[in-house]
Amino acid sequence: MPTLVMKFGGTSVATLDRIKRAAKRVGLEVANGYDVIAIVSAMSGKTNELVGWVNETSPIYDAREYDAVVSSGENVTAGLMAMTLQEMSIPARSWQGWQVPLLTSPIHSAARIQQIPTENILAKFAQGMRVAVVAGFQGISPEGRITTLGRGGSDTTAVAFAAAFLADRCDIYTDVDGVYTTDPRVAENARKLDKISFEEMLELASLGAKVLQTRSVELAMRFKVKLRVLSSFDEPSENAGTLVCHEEEIMESNVVSGIAFSRDEAKITLVSVADRPGIAAAIFGHLSDAGVNVDMIIQNIAEDGRTDMTFSCPTEQVSRAEKALQAGGPENHVNFQQLIADTSVAKISAVGIGMRSQSGVAAKMFKTLSDEGINIKVIATSEIKISVLIDRKYMELAVQALHDAFELEKPHS
Amino acid sequence: MPTLVMKFGGTSVATLDRIKRAAKRVGLEVANGYDVIAIVSAMSGKTNELVGWVNETSPIYDAREYDAVVSSGENVTAGLMAMTLQEMSIPARSWQGWQVPLLTSPIHSAARIQQIPTENILAKFAQGMRVAVVAGFQGISPEGRITTLGRGGSDTTAVAFAAAFLADRCDIYTDVDGVYTTDPRVAENARKLDKISFEEMLELASLGAKVLQTRSVELAMRFKVKLRVLSSFDEPSENAGTLVCHEEEIMESNVVSGIAFSRDEAKITLVSVADRPGIAAAIFGHLSDAGVNVDMIIQNIAEDGRTDMTFSCPTEQVSRAEKALQAGGPENHVNFQQLIADTSVAKISAVGIGMRSQSGVAAKMFKTLSDEGINIKVIATSEIKISVLIDRKYMELAVQALHDAFELEKPHS
Repeated sequence: MPTLVMKFGGTSVATLDRIKRAAKRVGLEVANGYDVIAIVSAMSGKTNELVGWVNETSPIYDAREYDAVVSSGENVTAGLMAMTLQEMSIPARSWQGWQVPLLTSPIHSAARIQQIPTENILAKFAQGMRVAVVAGFQGISPEGRITTLGRGGSDTTAVAFAAAFLADRCDIYTDVDGVYTTDPRVAENARKLDKISFEEMLELASLGAKVLQTRSVELAMRFKVKLRVLSSFDEPSENAGTLVCHEEEIMESNVVSGIAFSRDEAKITLVSVADRPGIAAAIFGHLSDAGVNVDMIIQNIAEDGRTDMTFSCPTEQVSRAEKALQAGGPENHVNFQQLIADTSVAKISAVGIGMRSQSGVAAKMFKTLSDEGINIKVIATSEIKISVLIDRKYMELAVQALHDAFELEKPHS
Repeated sequence: MPTLVMKFGGTSVATLDRIKRAAKRVGLEVANGYDVIAIVSAMSGKTNELVGWVNETSPIYDAREYDAVVSSGENVTAGLMAMTLQEMSIPARSWQGWQVPLLTSPIHSAARIQQIPTENILAKFAQGMRVAVVAGFQGISPEGRITTLGRGGSDTTAVAFAAAFLADRCDIYTDVDGVYTTDPRVAENARKLDKISFEEMLELASLGAKVLQTRSVELAMRFKVKLRVLSSFDEPSENAGTLVCHEEEIMESNVVSGIAFSRDEAKITLVSVADRPGIAAAIFGHLSDAGVNVDMIIQNIAEDGRTDMTFSCPTEQVSRAEKALQAGGPENHVNFQQLIADTSVAKISAVGIGMRSQSGVAAKMFKTLSDEGINIKVIATSEIKISVLIDRKYMELAVQALHDAFELEKPHS
């Protein structure tokens, strides 16, 4: 029988009623002829309770014990979900990470999946089991300790299972009904996308769209896993959610697929830096050591052997960045006249695979912003993305204007 | 280094503060030079929450999923306890049942421990670990599913570990400070026993003393594990709690060690049963099939080929017993004139290994009750126990009178 992976996040299994609702979704797919692997998160709130206890117990905790404690929430949901399915006369059983076994690296709390042997679960499918309910977010290390995968780990678990079992699709059930052209709270006419390419989804995810975790999208792209994001609260339907897939499967596509934005950006300019080889390496080496996530980087044209260097980073990392750069000392090779931090900027990005083949997107973006009287402070581009930093107070205006300019409210023609 | 097993029940680890308190106890024993195996229960209330979810999910649940769900509470405590010990600079790590691995029979929710391989934990002790924190109550079946040991399972886990690791002692930390001559709520002058024999403890446990679970006492007796019951809320002291040990280790001993009682007993009499071979087997076979726990049995002298048969069972099982016996039909060989159920009786038992060598205990017990005007309805004896059924309204009076008559308030002379 074909296999389907279905993943239910914390809000989709928050109560026994919601677990029942999720189980009914699973039942529909079993009736459709699928053997289902259901990946479940902890009931929402439970993991936070456990993390709270850990933090109260020990400020600098042993990550191995942290993982042993916080992974327990998923085990509870997995057992309850298996029972619920059995109540519906669907042969099901739960699997904890170590039972699969889902083998990971030994990096606790941020482990990476290394292998998912399929024999045990396939043997049960062969014996008539129709649903394997798997506790998400957890695995075991080579030493047999429990590991967790870190943020978004259950999405990653789901995609990895879909890859290992060659599943027809990996459905991620969450509390939003798909991927939108932009945040509907900012642009009222934002439209749900039926399909989006992996590349675009990756850019959107890394730009702050919280629907899917970047790692899970990367993994899906690498292993060609068809990924669908949909709401567990909507009625089941054929076209529910958004399908994340290879661009070849998207017949028609707008040049721009979505407008992403991030409110908490800061711009830092180092004025009059000595322009010599290795200076960029020195600056961004210091920042990296200090754990500053640098995003956009611009270097102005040098004059008289000196230059200005500008970069952006999250607002809450500004003081850390300043400290790292001003630390000084003879072995600190960064030498600049002045550091200017602008913490009232926002980043706006237009994302679309159509940009590769179609020119004029950047020009249209800049003109639209200019028409609204919005000044662009920094520009950065990738193959399928154009990002700009602007004054934060114009953020909503810019998003709406660009959404209108690229006609994102209309389906692809 | 010598090994000590310390077990902490649900109330002893109910909050992070109590876990810290328990960890300090462990720390004292580490300072005393012990390698410690700490067996922990779930934080009190947690297992009930999980059981509640299971019952709500499925009236007839899959015991394998039940075990997978309810075992998670112990895992949380084990991790938190290990972290707490590490905070105190004591090398510690947590072990879940499958990690030890604690191998059990496949009877889910009532599994029996089959083997505890010691290599993994001993290897860690050899490397400098001082405390192995083990999640109690759980193991794995031959098929690799999680099992739980049923009621009192954590006590049994503790004793089994003490046996496997040849521990000097197994300390059971609970919310009472030891075993008493009787319930102090019934007899004010009840006295805590410093020592009690396994045999006596077994009788007391099966008679309803809730300090230790019968299975754990049986196991301790079989493997010669010194068992100590003590409160985790009292200050540590040399003579804390009650030591359960072989009778040879108890130098002085009263003839009677304790008075046990059980309020919820019922007496059932079958009047005029045909007195023929196999009749008792038929009656108690039916009752056993119906899950009735028969305790005392008396058969009156037969007259004219008919006899009266009396037995006791827990009050809440009376209707089940009646149903089983009245089911009738040709293949039901129980034939009686009348069934009389008396649901207002209580059982009082005097327990003591001294009875073996000293006569007159029964006579003294009967005279004491007679002096108080209490009528004895049924008598049953074992080598170290005399039990009687009396009117429930005299229960407290009888316990106090017997406690006084056998001078249990005085230490052994």
